[in-house]
Amino acid sequence: MDNSGKRTAIGVDLGGTAIKYALGTADGKIIKEDKRPTNAEAAKEDILNDLKNAITNMKEYAQIQGYQPQAVGLGTPGSVDIRTGFLMGSTPNFRHWRDVEIKKELERRVGLPVFVDNDANLMALGETRFGAGIGHQNIICLTIGTGVGGGIIIDNNLYRGYRCAGAELGHMSIELEGLQCNCGGKGCLEAYASATAILRNFKRHYEKNNIPFNSKKMDVRYIFQLYRKNDTIARQVIDEACHYLGRGLATLINIFNPSMFIIGGGVAEAGEIYLSKVRETAYLYAMEKPREGVQIVGAKLGNKAGYLGAISFALESVGKA
Amino acid sequence: MDNSGKRTAIGVDLGGTAIKYALGTADGKIIKEDKRPTNAEAAKEDILNDLKNAITNMKEYAQIQGYQPQAVGLGTPGSVDIRTGFLMGSTPNFRHWRDVEIKKELERRVGLPVFVDNDANLMALGETRFGAGIGHQNIICLTIGTGVGGGIIIDNNLYRGYRCAGAELGHMSIELEGLQCNCGGKGCLEAYASATAILRNFKRHYEKNNIPFNSKKMDVRYIFQLYRKNDTIARQVIDEACHYLGRGLATLINIFNPSMFIIGGGVAEAGEIYLSKVRETAYLYAMEKPREGVQIVGAKLGNKAGYLGAISFALESVGKA
Repeated sequence: MDNSGKRTAIGVDLGGTAIKYALGTADGKIIKEDKRPTNAEAAKEDILNDLKNAITNMKEYAQIQGYQPQAVGLGTPGSVDIRTGFLMGSTPNFRHWRDVEIKKELERRVGLPVFVDNDANLMALGETRFGAGIGHQNIICLTIGTGVGGGIIIDNNLYRGYRCAGAELGHMSIELEGLQCNCGGKGCLEAYASATAILRNFKRHYEKNNIPFNSKKMDVRYIFQLYRKNDTIARQVIDEACHYLGRGLATLINIFNPSMFIIGGGVAEAGEIYLSKVRETAYLYAMEKPREGVQIVGAKLGNKAGYLGAISFALESVGKA
Repeated sequence: MDNSGKRTAIGVDLGGTAIKYALGTADGKIIKEDKRPTNAEAAKEDILNDLKNAITNMKEYAQIQGYQPQAVGLGTPGSVDIRTGFLMGSTPNFRHWRDVEIKKELERRVGLPVFVDNDANLMALGETRFGAGIGHQNIICLTIGTGVGGGIIIDNNLYRGYRCAGAELGHMSIELEGLQCNCGGKGCLEAYASATAILRNFKRHYEKNNIPFNSKKMDVRYIFQLYRKNDTIARQVIDEACHYLGRGLATLINIFNPSMFIIGGGVAEAGEIYLSKVRETAYLYAMEKPREGVQIVGAKLGNKAGYLGAISFALESVGKA
């Protein structure tokens, strides 16, 4: 089969639990996808080698099928200088993954141009190019999981800031004297609206009321099950989390007047039951003009958004490099 | 004198108390400036005629001097659809100035192309092109006066949002259960950091402590005078206002990672005594990476920023129109 004329790239999403990766085309078609576990405790060198193995496997597959991948795109947690592909500083869930010359180290190992960006940015790009955001130019993406990640699309491109360190939407402060955050701030949205916050608040209520609970079973999905069964505590905790996120969105509406919010991540998987409440608060607190016509929708691509965005980023970058 | 080869425009800044306007060049040179009182209580038609008189006076002057102004730029409070020059909805300090076809009405009256934008946007553009922001590409401008206005510069251009209704930076919520705001939100930055908020808090403290005060004399400038004399209440109130603004900036740093904040308006005229406190809080609460290298400086152009930005906007737009 002669596939050599098709523009393809390898996209990699380095997550806290798995490395998800795929070979895909410029128009978002996935040719092959795969994953392997992340060892978040491992040394830099070991993570780089795991990434190398994933990429070279996919590259070999591509070549057998007659594809010539032009580049690799990689999303990693943390702030990345996209010009140099350098991971600036540390990432909360990785032990030794800090100050890594990712681009340089991987290019040496895989023999292809490598383009690196923050994972939430590439998820946002994936959803914009191939998912919920098709046709929209100004989009704010939020990923509500363990933390709250953000991606900002302005005029159809990622906005990263002066030193590629912006879009930390989980670290908007929504409460002056609120919870202390690891980031150095106080009252950050993440501390109120993340899965972690929902679980923490749920446990606190159960404990306060001396209700025994099985903490192994306890995750956000389970709490939403209870919510659907009208469990009082689940309803209170979820309603609060929706209110907090909605308040955050109201501020983002006033700042950005985007045409769309895309909400992804584990919590948003609860779907319309969750989104409708978030939407209600966001519209209620946002200003009249900025909120007009703003859509608040769920992500469409699930955990494929990251590597699809990475493929898109790689192919958009390799032309300019 | 043959000035007909110079690219010039007329810039107009429609403020709550004065219409400030000027004839200037594309590189920010002011040839002539003037002002006249605003009648904020007047009917639409009367304000339009006041604007027309200002513009035609300046146009006549220009022609006598041999200039051929190519366009008019106008900044008005409120949300403006810049494509149509339509003022969408109302503005807080004007009685009848709502839903006005400003561009259409003025072009008919003055015989020049007219380009209209929000006043805070044009102030931000003026400071970016000709003031404190020269050389910076990603700038957040805040005007701390009666209210708190915002302008967002991304890649050297104004960011306005999907329907030109964004950049309402005074309406970021910083306090979940904070003060109710006229905008429909709660805990808006404006209600904590504006001149109005400073005055309100100051009076409240004086009254609480049964200290008589001359409310006629009472303005932000006077409170800063007391601050410099170590007046306990002035110090407390100003320190709080600086803290609130700094907290707002910390959130904006995490969102935008700009290279510069430009702080203007009546309150910022207090200068370094004010800015240094705002800066301290902003850096303390912002995240490590996004805050690196971010400058927080005062505006340089004072009340000329508005019409200088309007001139720049007019000349940048007329080429594309």
